[in-house]
Amino acid sequence: MLCCNNPQEWTDHIRSACVLPEGFSLHATNLEFFPVEKPSAKPYPMRLSLIKAHRPCTAFGAVFTRNAFPGAPVLIGRERLGRPAMQAILINNKISNVGSPSGREDSLALCAEAGRVLGIDGEAVFPSSTGIIGWSLPVQAMKQALPALAQPAAVADIPRFAQAIMTTDSYPKAFSVPVGQGTILGFAKGAGMIEPNMATMLVFLLTDVCISRQDLQAVLARVVDRSFNCISVDSDQSTSDSCFIMSSGLKPAVPLDQFETALGAVCAHLAAHVVRNGEGTAHVMRVTVAGLGSWSLNREAAKAVVNSPLVKTAVYGNDPNIGRIVASLGDFLGNRGLALDRQRLRISLGGTEVFGQGAFRIRPGLEEELSALLKAAWQDPALVGYPHQDRTVDIRISLDGPLGPEDREAVVFGSDLGYEYVKENADYRS
Amino acid sequence: MLCCNNPQEWTDHIRSACVLPEGFSLHATNLEFFPVEKPSAKPYPMRLSLIKAHRPCTAFGAVFTRNAFPGAPVLIGRERLGRPAMQAILINNKISNVGSPSGREDSLALCAEAGRVLGIDGEAVFPSSTGIIGWSLPVQAMKQALPALAQPAAVADIPRFAQAIMTTDSYPKAFSVPVGQGTILGFAKGAGMIEPNMATMLVFLLTDVCISRQDLQAVLARVVDRSFNCISVDSDQSTSDSCFIMSSGLKPAVPLDQFETALGAVCAHLAAHVVRNGEGTAHVMRVTVAGLGSWSLNREAAKAVVNSPLVKTAVYGNDPNIGRIVASLGDFLGNRGLALDRQRLRISLGGTEVFGQGAFRIRPGLEEELSALLKAAWQDPALVGYPHQDRTVDIRISLDGPLGPEDREAVVFGSDLGYEYVKENADYRS
Repeated sequence: MLCCNNPQEWTDHIRSACVLPEGFSLHATNLEFFPVEKPSAKPYPMRLSLIKAHRPCTAFGAVFTRNAFPGAPVLIGRERLGRPAMQAILINNKISNVGSPSGREDSLALCAEAGRVLGIDGEAVFPSSTGIIGWSLPVQAMKQALPALAQPAAVADIPRFAQAIMTTDSYPKAFSVPVGQGTILGFAKGAGMIEPNMATMLVFLLTDVCISRQDLQAVLARVVDRSFNCISVDSDQSTSDSCFIMSSGLKPAVPLDQFETALGAVCAHLAAHVVRNGEGTAHVMRVTVAGLGSWSLNREAAKAVVNSPLVKTAVYGNDPNIGRIVASLGDFLGNRGLALDRQRLRISLGGTEVFGQGAFRIRPGLEEELSALLKAAWQDPALVGYPHQDRTVDIRISLDGPLGPEDREAVVFGSDLGYEYVKENADYRS
Repeated sequence: MLCCNNPQEWTDHIRSACVLPEGFSLHATNLEFFPVEKPSAKPYPMRLSLIKAHRPCTAFGAVFTRNAFPGAPVLIGRERLGRPAMQAILINNKISNVGSPSGREDSLALCAEAGRVLGIDGEAVFPSSTGIIGWSLPVQAMKQALPALAQPAAVADIPRFAQAIMTTDSYPKAFSVPVGQGTILGFAKGAGMIEPNMATMLVFLLTDVCISRQDLQAVLARVVDRSFNCISVDSDQSTSDSCFIMSSGLKPAVPLDQFETALGAVCAHLAAHVVRNGEGTAHVMRVTVAGLGSWSLNREAAKAVVNSPLVKTAVYGNDPNIGRIVASLGDFLGNRGLALDRQRLRISLGGTEVFGQGAFRIRPGLEEELSALLKAAWQDPALVGYPHQDRTVDIRISLDGPLGPEDREAVVFGSDLGYEYVKENADYRS
């Protein structure tokens, strides 16, 4: 993971390192917009963005939030997974179009209008919205802004597009890897409300590698489960999480496992960056759990630790309160009626064993060492616009003894919880 | 719930309103103690407290944490539930005796020494510790302090005892109700790490009403489930939660349902106060859920809302972000594979309907009204020593239509999440 010293360096890095797969164009424009209900809202414009394939794509897929109160764009997206081909994704920030009385017709009308303006089938457009829940989209104003999206001035390069889809993100996130003769490119927008099923996170994946729709959807589901579903900023799963993928099919196919590895690399990279630029993140935690019996259980336990407010605040304060790690693990297991053999338990923080042989490994100077380790992993949440550094607070929890075949270790990334998180979330709309 | 203007008024209220059941004495003393591992720790003394029955009680019971990594006092307490009679509870703060290599023998030695000093059976003493996880108890220093607990100077009145068991609590919590010719008195210590199964909460319940051990234990389990298991400060269940009850049996028995009602009143009162004095609590939320199909599911959904970091921070910021309430409910249901019929959904905030008939009820001025309502329920977390006021932020979620017999509404109390919570928990030990 690259560490940059300033936003320009990061933008340059994205521009030079990322490749747009053949057969797609990116578009972005601004719409000056202030909601009627809240005239005092911060004057940030709604942005409209668009991904357009030159031709309809028969290979496409998407994974959506499991939230039982999904937004209209998610409901429409699920329906459109059954269509023969899709060609575009219309994206807006500021308002997520969730729970509005006219939500469905609003999104449908915008897709139809986008289709008309772009000269493509309006039903081949995925709608994708993020932002405040409950408000209605300003459909008329958005419709009026749509023709500008089709103008040459709106065609965006990769950094500009990555920037355009941001909301409270502190820096743009894009990554691509070559695969065979083609490329997989991914964008992510997300910060806050990240867990477990891609909450308020929008991910757009594009490839020119030829692949069947069935394979593409299966690979996407597996990769998302091991990447975006293994991160957590604040344990809330949003009403709008979506991860889209489209293939133009212009480059030769590659073996499926090769494609899956490449897609996994793109998603792992984006997922880690989504945590790193989480709202008010000062430390990124990397919690590894092995030995509880299955990968799923290991992952859930790791999430429980990474989501514990007491662990998160201790890490924020550079306080090596190792008792809270054990308490959150015990809480997780106890609530599921599972026992914990403390004789087999081993916990390390930054590579230093803090629990083993049935007891905490406390010795003079240990606290100071661990606190120094936490301080060294600090990134200043007040700095925005680029990733500050790539350090993590590594917490490893394992049980001694041979691991079963299903007991692969799970790795979960999460953020700490500090003043900046509160500030960002208590003041989001005011 | 009484609101006081100053600590003295609150102490006077406890003194005048609470009655000590016959057959018990309360004791408290201080032990100046600084752990070796952390010489720079805040200089607050460990306090030893003691509840002693004049005679062994055959009727007693306890409910302990379900955390899979319980402290030594919890493990010993579970064993002693099988003894013929118990007579005392020895309480310390500062160190919870969890995960120490010598934890079990330390607690056993302290109980034995307390028994020797008090002239009672050391095995009839429950140990009860709260504080930092991982450190070992300073057994020698504690043993030396035990004789002072038996001195007349250590005999404490109700306010002094309630004060002695505090850690980061901002004010003492005690409550009693008359029942028949006797009394039920309860004390609670707890703030932070409260949920769902009485995390770092110690509760001591005393009565002189005659009751069988079997009845007492059954009633206690039911009452705890409806009171302390319906509150949440930060969703972490501690390694030390315990709720003890002892009866001296000196007053005539009453019908069991009458006893249960009285015990329920004591526990409900204490539970609400534990939330109100949670670490850094500025708003107390009262979330009511009905219509999901069962009381348990209603309660879990209410907890999901009350524990959502995004809901908590919005409430802290007096931001009526009603979308986050819906999102957290949808997250909870979606993760369980449950659907949400939004046509039947009704949500109100402070009595004002914000969602109904399938959509958010947004109208001009609503946000300002709701924000004013949140501001009116604010209590200043910087004020410590007494409950500031008794207002709550009332969130009600229900589904229209007839409720099944199992579908009783559940009420959960929780706290918001603000700067003071972070400060308290990031700086706990430094």
